[in-house]
Amino acid sequence: MKIYIATTGDEILQGIIIDSNSAWISEKCAQIGHEVIGHIAIGDSAQEIGQALKFAASKADCVIVSGGLGPTSDDLTVEAAAQEFKAKLELHEPTLENIKKFFENMGRQMAKTNQKQALVPEGGKALYNSVGTAPGIQVNWQDTEFIFLPGVPAELYQIFEDFVLPWLKQRVKTAQFSKVLRCFGLPEAQIAEKIEKTNLFESKISFRVKFPEILLKLINNDQEKLEKAIAAVKQDLKQAVYAEDNEDMPHCVAKLLTEKDMRIAVAESCTGGLISSLFTDVAGSSNFFERGVVTYSNTAKQEILKISPQTIANFGAVSKETALDMARGVQNLSKVDLGISVTGIAGPSGGSEQKPVGTVFMAYATKTEAQVFHYQFHGNRGRIKLMTAVSAIDMVRKYLLKG
Amino acid sequence: MKIYIATTGDEILQGIIIDSNSAWISEKCAQIGHEVIGHIAIGDSAQEIGQALKFAASKADCVIVSGGLGPTSDDLTVEAAAQEFKAKLELHEPTLENIKKFFENMGRQMAKTNQKQALVPEGGKALYNSVGTAPGIQVNWQDTEFIFLPGVPAELYQIFEDFVLPWLKQRVKTAQFSKVLRCFGLPEAQIAEKIEKTNLFESKISFRVKFPEILLKLINNDQEKLEKAIAAVKQDLKQAVYAEDNEDMPHCVAKLLTEKDMRIAVAESCTGGLISSLFTDVAGSSNFFERGVVTYSNTAKQEILKISPQTIANFGAVSKETALDMARGVQNLSKVDLGISVTGIAGPSGGSEQKPVGTVFMAYATKTEAQVFHYQFHGNRGRIKLMTAVSAIDMVRKYLLKG
Repeated sequence: MKIYIATTGDEILQGIIIDSNSAWISEKCAQIGHEVIGHIAIGDSAQEIGQALKFAASKADCVIVSGGLGPTSDDLTVEAAAQEFKAKLELHEPTLENIKKFFENMGRQMAKTNQKQALVPEGGKALYNSVGTAPGIQVNWQDTEFIFLPGVPAELYQIFEDFVLPWLKQRVKTAQFSKVLRCFGLPEAQIAEKIEKTNLFESKISFRVKFPEILLKLINNDQEKLEKAIAAVKQDLKQAVYAEDNEDMPHCVAKLLTEKDMRIAVAESCTGGLISSLFTDVAGSSNFFERGVVTYSNTAKQEILKISPQTIANFGAVSKETALDMARGVQNLSKVDLGISVTGIAGPSGGSEQKPVGTVFMAYATKTEAQVFHYQFHGNRGRIKLMTAVSAIDMVRKYLLKG
Repeated sequence: MKIYIATTGDEILQGIIIDSNSAWISEKCAQIGHEVIGHIAIGDSAQEIGQALKFAASKADCVIVSGGLGPTSDDLTVEAAAQEFKAKLELHEPTLENIKKFFENMGRQMAKTNQKQALVPEGGKALYNSVGTAPGIQVNWQDTEFIFLPGVPAELYQIFEDFVLPWLKQRVKTAQFSKVLRCFGLPEAQIAEKIEKTNLFESKISFRVKFPEILLKLINNDQEKLEKAIAAVKQDLKQAVYAEDNEDMPHCVAKLLTEKDMRIAVAESCTGGLISSLFTDVAGSSNFFERGVVTYSNTAKQEILKISPQTIANFGAVSKETALDMARGVQNLSKVDLGISVTGIAGPSGGSEQKPVGTVFMAYATKTEAQVFHYQFHGNRGRIKLMTAVSAIDMVRKYLLKG
């Protein structure tokens, strides 16, 4: 079934709130195999609402509308729609009773303005709202099914789960299967090139940049074909695919560290604590994360990590020698399996011709070995920090996969 | 001017991402006094894109489109639009040169697929993208001004600020003045109560939750009245208003520290490096941020901060005693003006009846005094981490304002 999602409310058009309801409904529809073909948002204007619903109905089998079911004068979604489709509104007594009861349960009396929330277009049905006053409404006009839902997220979710989802499930013809492959370390264009000739077994593929990652989504009606396509893409992209679906880089590496029963310590300079913060976003991180130090000043590098003043004087705080000594220092200090470090120039100032903004050295050290890597990143301070932090965590991933 | 905002991308219709670009553009347009009359989102289908743009153009003077300017085959916004409005696409040599240079600066070669990003419709102009490859495009078709922007937020923001905003500002008839007051430490309902009777001098006011902050926006056609309203709101909300417009808490406190020529060091437990990371997001943070330690394990607390094992044994790692000793420890270790600390339970596990998830102690210590504060926060791990980190930075703000 083709579905259009419409949202009403001035506050969305003024950018005061972000329309997360449409994304939520979309995800629910996509999960069970319906195709959402468009979103439209309009203000609290009867004319705009009417025209937008007409446009949506011309393209879709079902239009799901949220917002504008409240008791105030700027809540006019149902009136506007009924007017556009020339339907009468009728007072629905059971709904009026429900609204009265809702207020009674809170020890209050129903305001007169709430009465209009019990108006339902002729031929339509009210969808009971167990967490608020405005019911949902479902009605068929000109062969398009219209579903009206409150804009308050908690009420929308409840009515959707109670009535809309079961109804939608009955109308799915073919199931759909999908998988997101999370990629890091290659830009979008290079990923596209590498899988240009990959056999996707008729899967639909889409790219999404979620800086600093690229997410590849594969969709297929046939689960077996989807799995073959996933295997083929993974083979062609190799280690650039690091995880699937919702597992981000810190969670992926946390899982690897936990599996291997290894603990880590982090010494940061230009990332300023971000690597530690990403690792400790993972619930239960105390199992693998021992400590972090943000040695921003040279004094801190010398005092905490025992970097020799000579190393800094000879090679600079941003150098492969300092990065190596930082990794060795934090490993040695904390006696963990793996110490890692980053030092670099996040900008906007501090760059030079030899070491421009974005120059980063990162290293890891175990009890027996150490390795250092040199990167040149681009963008503003925030992007360089994030790119450096995720690259450092990816360095740990590649080390763990090697061993 | 009436503006319609269109977004393209299957991932929006599938609910994989929330369309925050449209909200961002809406807010910018509303701030300078243009009226956004609708949002529409469509998938990566040439036909749908064409029809949606036609619909938007029938209602608005200007249509701002984001997404689908990338190098891959599902990026077809400009082609689809040009086809709908019967415009030829021409290779724009200066843009091609910019794209090549962009890759050269990263030490890479341009992929062949990037070439299509230099195609501009006849009569249109390319809007230089200083942070990515795809330029924006501006073109007038059938008396409607079309502006195409990349979907990657950082690139969209940059091109919008560089070219679109100046162009939009020239087309505003009556000026509007606005100011955002950034509040922290009071919930939305309490803020609303405290300013219920405040004289706003006819300013329009709106609330926006940007966790963990509340942003209050005031709009007025008269600058003098706006300023009077701002002064009145600030008087009634006192220290809860910490800054204006785009100055976030770390930047606000960074400015105070720099003004007073003071340096800080941070000892973190449950925030896991987030406080240090927020401070070092500020450009030039090395002027006031000396070091940070993420003493996640008790061993790290003892070794780095010299917390006595007795303190931890007697009172626990999450206690006011440990918090105080952590702040004193990091101040003493680094010899800075101000040491701060947090220790708490971010969850989801680790809570007890006496110290439930969300229990947090935070402290500051100077050479001569120390203070500790006890909080009970709520929500998931991520929210508790962020709330704790911003509260700790706010603790520094209040200390600095006092002295």
